[in-house]
Amino acid sequence: MKVTLLAGGVGGAKLAHGFQQVLDPGELSVIVNVGDDTELYGLAVSPDIDTVLYTLAGAANAETGWGVAGDTWTALAMLARYHEETWFRVGDADLATHVRRSHILRDGASLTDATAQMATALGVPSRILPASNDRLRTILATDEGELAFQDYFVRRGQEPEVRAVGFDGVEAARPTQQVLAAIHEADLLVIAPSNPIVSIGPTLAMRDIREAIIVAGEAGTPRVAVSPIIAGRALKGPADRMLASLGHESSALGVARIYAGILDWFVIDEADAALVHDVEALGMRAVVRQTVMHDDQERAHLATAILDLVGGAVSSSR
Amino acid sequence: MKVTLLAGGVGGAKLAHGFQQVLDPGELSVIVNVGDDTELYGLAVSPDIDTVLYTLAGAANAETGWGVAGDTWTALAMLARYHEETWFRVGDADLATHVRRSHILRDGASLTDATAQMATALGVPSRILPASNDRLRTILATDEGELAFQDYFVRRGQEPEVRAVGFDGVEAARPTQQVLAAIHEADLLVIAPSNPIVSIGPTLAMRDIREAIIVAGEAGTPRVAVSPIIAGRALKGPADRMLASLGHESSALGVARIYAGILDWFVIDEADAALVHDVEALGMRAVVRQTVMHDDQERAHLATAILDLVGGAVSSSR
Repeated sequence: MKVTLLAGGVGGAKLAHGFQQVLDPGELSVIVNVGDDTELYGLAVSPDIDTVLYTLAGAANAETGWGVAGDTWTALAMLARYHEETWFRVGDADLATHVRRSHILRDGASLTDATAQMATALGVPSRILPASNDRLRTILATDEGELAFQDYFVRRGQEPEVRAVGFDGVEAARPTQQVLAAIHEADLLVIAPSNPIVSIGPTLAMRDIREAIIVAGEAGTPRVAVSPIIAGRALKGPADRMLASLGHESSALGVARIYAGILDWFVIDEADAALVHDVEALGMRAVVRQTVMHDDQERAHLATAILDLVGGAVSSSR
Repeated sequence: MKVTLLAGGVGGAKLAHGFQQVLDPGELSVIVNVGDDTELYGLAVSPDIDTVLYTLAGAANAETGWGVAGDTWTALAMLARYHEETWFRVGDADLATHVRRSHILRDGASLTDATAQMATALGVPSRILPASNDRLRTILATDEGELAFQDYFVRRGQEPEVRAVGFDGVEAARPTQQVLAAIHEADLLVIAPSNPIVSIGPTLAMRDIREAIIVAGEAGTPRVAVSPIIAGRALKGPADRMLASLGHESSALGVARIYAGILDWFVIDEADAALVHDVEALGMRAVVRQTVMHDDQERAHLATAILDLVGGAVSSSR
């Protein structure tokens, strides 16, 4: 049962970990957002890839959702003495990740190759696929001017209202062959409960990816998304406010509207059971499940619930 | 009283710290070996500059002589998981130094500018001057083949016998203007008790530096060296074995012979008082002092003893 998951940061990483728990090694491919990649101290930083990498390696900091469990902060203190910016909170192990990735990239490898090497090194049994090897950067037009994603997300603490979102480089950026193959070969395509605008948006903004998902759907591959909005609110991050300020409805229905045309199933939380009819009116099937993932077990439960949706073939094949 | 010190790693850093304690801020310039500079994880690493930097900033690890006091090792453990080499023991704060230096260099600044920025940031009141901004790398021909300096020094633990020493890039490498000015403007030139072959050797191998020292001597600037060899042994490092395997005498006298022609005074330890006559036969004055520097006070004592040698003008001018 090959599952391909489109994911951003924390929510996507949790569901990826759920699938990894219930699938066989190698069955899960995670296509990860690169729109919030940045450079820090001259190093290449891929925050969403790192969150997925650490989570699938069992190394993630469970409290923060980002960074490495048990990390220390010695390098950051020294970087502060050298007058480097420290608003992007990089722990020592996390810094090692950025150093390692930058080292591999400088030796001429792609971000895809670097990620694969690093995931293998950390013992991750799933494939972590950057959506693109090309430069693709989310830019937010806010009440305080145009901001790069991390500048908005971390430095400004998601305070400014977002009035428009653009993806710098999206005209030229292409998905990798590995990404297109993962969509083509999937038995099930899932969009994780990640921010639809800035976590999934940059990936879907690449025309070849959107088309590949449409083609896969026409060929019969079930396509399922899980709402990141529950009872009008994002569990984490600014998705709810961002949906509203961009003119969407801050609800599971608002998210379903964004994905209309590329989805067969939409999973909404028990808190949103009343929205089933409106979601189905968009041309997809709506199902109600418990979608909050407090622990490893709930991650696996949600993954299993999604697999069960599309035929229950998994439990019998295992 | 402007003092310019030629230094390598630990011994040089200690004497630099001694001078910094007894001179006014800005009076000390340290010309630091770049022959053991290397690249690690794609980052620019300057081990001797770092040792001098940390020592003069009061941040050095007193036990090891290298690295930062109280450093942690989280990044190195993560780099090991990523299969990076870890024989060069980089602590987290030390990694921050390499990241910061590399960042400044990638933005187009010189090693001299990067070093000055970092020294200022750490509150160092002395000037730390890389001998050159150009690539100059010590290469050792050993019984186990040709080795880059750190490969010999750290990775192989100085085990292989050294049969020849070369400085890759020395034909093209030029000292910086700051280095030549520091020699020209000095009231006193000192060669630290560093390895004469691989710590001082690369700096003196640049013709312009050797000539500047000769010109300064002709103009009356006193030139003093302190023997790094005491009773035939190096306090630290492989200088004694290296002198022997390269055909020199492993003694203060052997070191004095290497510096003959560019020295006015040679300071030897009390343990080597019997060598005074032989050293003076080389055309320099030999003086016996306590040269071992166990603590900050002994560093200052040795610096004061050197200043006193050349006229005692310092105590009256302060």
